[in-house]
Amino acid sequence: MQTFDWPVRVYYEDTDAGGVVYHANYLNFMERARTEWLRALGFEQDQLRTEHNLLFAVHSMQLTYRRPARFNDALLIQSRINKASGASMQFEQNIYRGEELLCQASVRIASLDAESFRPKSIPTFILTEMHGDC
Amino acid sequence: MQTFDWPVRVYYEDTDAGGVVYHANYLNFMERARTEWLRALGFEQDQLRTEHNLLFAVHSMQLTYRRPARFNDALLIQSRINKASGASMQFEQNIYRGEELLCQASVRIASLDAESFRPKSIPTFILTEMHGDC
Amino acid sequence: MQTFDWPVRVYYEDTDAGGVVYHANYLNFMERARTEWLRALGFEQDQLRTEHNLLFAVHSMQLTYRRPARFNDALLIQSRINKASGASMQFEQNIYRGEELLCQASVRIASLDAESFRPKSIPTFILTEMHGDC
Amino acid sequence: MQTFDWPVRVYYEDTDAGGVVYHANYLNFMERARTEWLRALGFEQDQLRTEHNLLFAVHSMQLTYRRPARFNDALLIQSRINKASGASMQFEQNIYRGEELLCQASVRIASLDAESFRPKSIPTFILTEMHGDC
Repeated sequence: MQTFDWPVRVYYEDTDAGGVVYHANYLNFMERARTEWLRALGFEQDQLRTEHNLLFAVHSMQLTYRRPARFNDALLIQSRINKASGASMQFEQNIYRGEELLCQASVRIASLDAESFRPKSIPTFILTEMHGDC
Repeated sequence: MQTFDWPVRVYYEDTDAGGVVYHANYLNFMERARTEWLRALGFEQDQLRTEHNLLFAVHSMQLTYRRPARFNDALLIQSRINKASGASMQFEQNIYRGEELLCQASVRIASLDAESFRPKSIPTFILTEMHGDC
Repeated sequence: MQTFDWPVRVYYEDTDAGGVVYHANYLNFMERARTEWLRALGFEQDQLRTEHNLLFAVHSMQLTYRRPARFNDALLIQSRINKASGASMQFEQNIYRGEELLCQASVRIASLDAESFRPKSIPTFILTEMHGDC
Repeated sequence: MQTFDWPVRVYYEDTDAGGVVYHANYLNFMERARTEWLRALGFEQDQLRTEHNLLFAVHSMQLTYRRPARFNDALLIQSRINKASGASMQFEQNIYRGEELLCQASVRIASLDAESFRPKSIPTFILTEMHGDC
């Protein structure tokens, strides 16, 4: 299974008075990486929403913070999809600074109807691209 | 003209690695104060949007940062509306920590059609309450 | 064991273009609640840092998003500490809108030396208050 | 005088329930552009702080929001320094989506002692590079 790498630079907006990246902001980095992974597969989420009434939302996640990232760090977000079927996708996402693993996450994404927020199967044309990526 | 006071506590999310409140986050504090001022006048912005197709958006602002706020500070946001007519409102907003003035802002708010984002006159029933407050 | 309740209002800053609270921002709400729980026990984190060289940081968390919160919602963050010993605390935090459970989290907090970021035992004077609360 | 261009992609984290970029988040985009401009000149702000005890902070700004940016937009931040002398720099920053000007800002940056937060002259080795850029 392939991994998708997305670089992220740490700016002041990402840090807190502890001198490190504020814990909730790693979730932004992982969201950006998933967005760019979808884009690399050929899917724009604004089009999925307007043309297919489809919205991807975080259903649940497990996070472990191993070491803190700091202002100005150049990070790499490694993302891998483990499973995509029905109305659900499972991602493993690791955040690295060089060789150091800073943060690990398992993220379950729900595929939703953009208006009702009810589960909606991932369309076949998306699953095909995802499995081609796996 | 009356001022409307709204207290804000500084949490880690608001600070940056400089050890102080990140400059953009003062705009959040001022937005919260304007929202609560509208609520105190009897207006809920979600209802204004769904029932009157009305959205308030920042048109322009001038900000001066005098002294930094820090983690755990208890701040007070003082807001005063200087002018409200047509599709525009002008606020003066000052952020205090006790007697110390930390940040001063003049904020011009546009009244917009929530779908087209075009200017839309502030409804009379709102202006009446605002002027009662002035 | 007692729970600590902290109210949070949803402002525009907390929402995203999906019309709901952005998933990472629930972590802010839970951080605020933990900060206010510590304050209610008599501890200010800025003093713990300067006087005791002590910093609390999120070590790991599990989150489940059940239903979305929306702009203007009045939420309640219910927090309960399950365990506090050594250099670690375990929180259960639930986010409610009235009777509806929106988000559930288990959060493990590490007690760290504020400079080295290495584990540092929670001081006895804090554990005593925490267990009094349990 | 040269301008420095920095691209920014709009992610969910940047938007709000109005469907557009939340007004305070444009300040993040402009901060990132100033950081990258300094980096392009050869200066890393973490090194300026640890080696020269120097911190750049926003002193004041004027902002005008012309049109809203939306989720998934590819923006360009154009930055130009108008003046740099003493302990102060003046930036003009414009945010574009293609040909459309979305946001205009004048930003005055103060050069500060990183510990006392008092004004501190911009070192000559930095001014030289800045003027070379002008």
